[in-house]
Amino acid sequence: MENGKLYVIGLGPGGAEDMSGRARAAIESCEVVAGYTVYVDLLREEFPDKEILTTPMRKEVERCRMALEEAVAGRKVAMVCSGDPGVYGMAGLIYELAHEYPPVDIEVIPGVSASNGGAAVLGAPLMHDYCVISLSDLLTPWEKIEKRLIAAAEADFVISLYNPSSHKRPDYLQKACDILLAHKDGATVCGTVRNIGREGEEANVMTLAELRDTPVDMFTTVFIGNSQTVELDGRMVTPRGYLQRED
Amino acid sequence: MENGKLYVIGLGPGGAEDMSGRARAAIESCEVVAGYTVYVDLLREEFPDKEILTTPMRKEVERCRMALEEAVAGRKVAMVCSGDPGVYGMAGLIYELAHEYPPVDIEVIPGVSASNGGAAVLGAPLMHDYCVISLSDLLTPWEKIEKRLIAAAEADFVISLYNPSSHKRPDYLQKACDILLAHKDGATVCGTVRNIGREGEEANVMTLAELRDTPVDMFTTVFIGNSQTVELDGRMVTPRGYLQRED
Repeated sequence: MENGKLYVIGLGPGGAEDMSGRARAAIESCEVVAGYTVYVDLLREEFPDKEILTTPMRKEVERCRMALEEAVAGRKVAMVCSGDPGVYGMAGLIYELAHEYPPVDIEVIPGVSASNGGAAVLGAPLMHDYCVISLSDLLTPWEKIEKRLIAAAEADFVISLYNPSSHKRPDYLQKACDILLAHKDGATVCGTVRNIGREGEEANVMTLAELRDTPVDMFTTVFIGNSQTVELDGRMVTPRGYLQRED
Repeated sequence: MENGKLYVIGLGPGGAEDMSGRARAAIESCEVVAGYTVYVDLLREEFPDKEILTTPMRKEVERCRMALEEAVAGRKVAMVCSGDPGVYGMAGLIYELAHEYPPVDIEVIPGVSASNGGAAVLGAPLMHDYCVISLSDLLTPWEKIEKRLIAAAEADFVISLYNPSSHKRPDYLQKACDILLAHKDGATVCGTVRNIGREGEEANVMTLAELRDTPVDMFTTVFIGNSQTVELDGRMVTPRGYLQRED
């Protein structure tokens, strides 16, 4: 029996046009596409002839085992993720689980992650050293998240926050802002982007003090500037220093 | 006269197949393509009918002014960058300079940055909270870089290093590793990727102690694991915690 192949593919932040040529070609080459229900709907339109395997949210381990088992059985499988599978996506779990199965060829095809996609909508907030932090404490103790927020603030990193809120954690962004406000100016330029690259895309630039009292949901990515970040004509921009060098 | 448009476009880490559909369509719609000489060569092949404007390395301000002036004059211009224009790219500088010109429509189209592209080659190192730090001190004082390295190590972030070395700074990665080794275990799993998505792509997984004595060049992106990062069948993988939760 021929050996299978498992691609772990990032679709980018928004619609089908955000996919890279490599991602598209890899999906085309597969018989089976696996993924979280919501993203797979997008693929049904683009690739109507593929067999589609889905599991709902929170069933990450099941979803990855399903994809691995198909590949181990000799099929070509595309496991798709929104954004980049290598950032809070399925790439790591696939490699961890693959260790339990007979050897199978795995290839990760990166996509544009929400931090990069959201930054492009807001302007250019991530032009200097930055941190990516998830506020979800489902898999990470809150104390660790808190420690990282403080370290990021003290070292003046730009910060991109994933999972800033959920039904069970409506006040986590507020908690995070309170921690940051102890180490950063309340006037620090911040931004939020909701539904990046999707219908209803919405971006807002505000101060850190205002961000604290801004309601956000799980479809929002949050950006907190460093001490140099400015608002320019409604855009959030962190200078890299090219112009300052010329002075 | 009709108003022009300036796209700032990320080509992704490697060849033309790493471009998104949105990036490709935007370039197609433009009359003029501007960029750093090396990346523009790739475009000459893909888009032979475009007028091409180039400036060499280090002429970033000139290059952005050139693109802005064409757009202000009413033309449709694509300013292209390798990777993501929003991460150590031209997006920020374009917005800073645009402030000096008559209003012009600017749109940033993100691409896969070297941290995400390199992570996909190595396995899945960026699955948990991470920092992106450039070791170039051309525009940033070394003391600030040092402070960020220490903060990232102490808060146990995964770290992705851009510009780990250059002709004038052959020992900067060694200096950075010495700082990290004061706060992290020498056995920490690390990785390097050279020529991501290009001819001669090369990835290596090693310990932090080994990384210290590994020569790298300006085409290399470096990854330093957090305390949970492991080597699994030759891949660098940072567990997110899904399997640990099941225990």
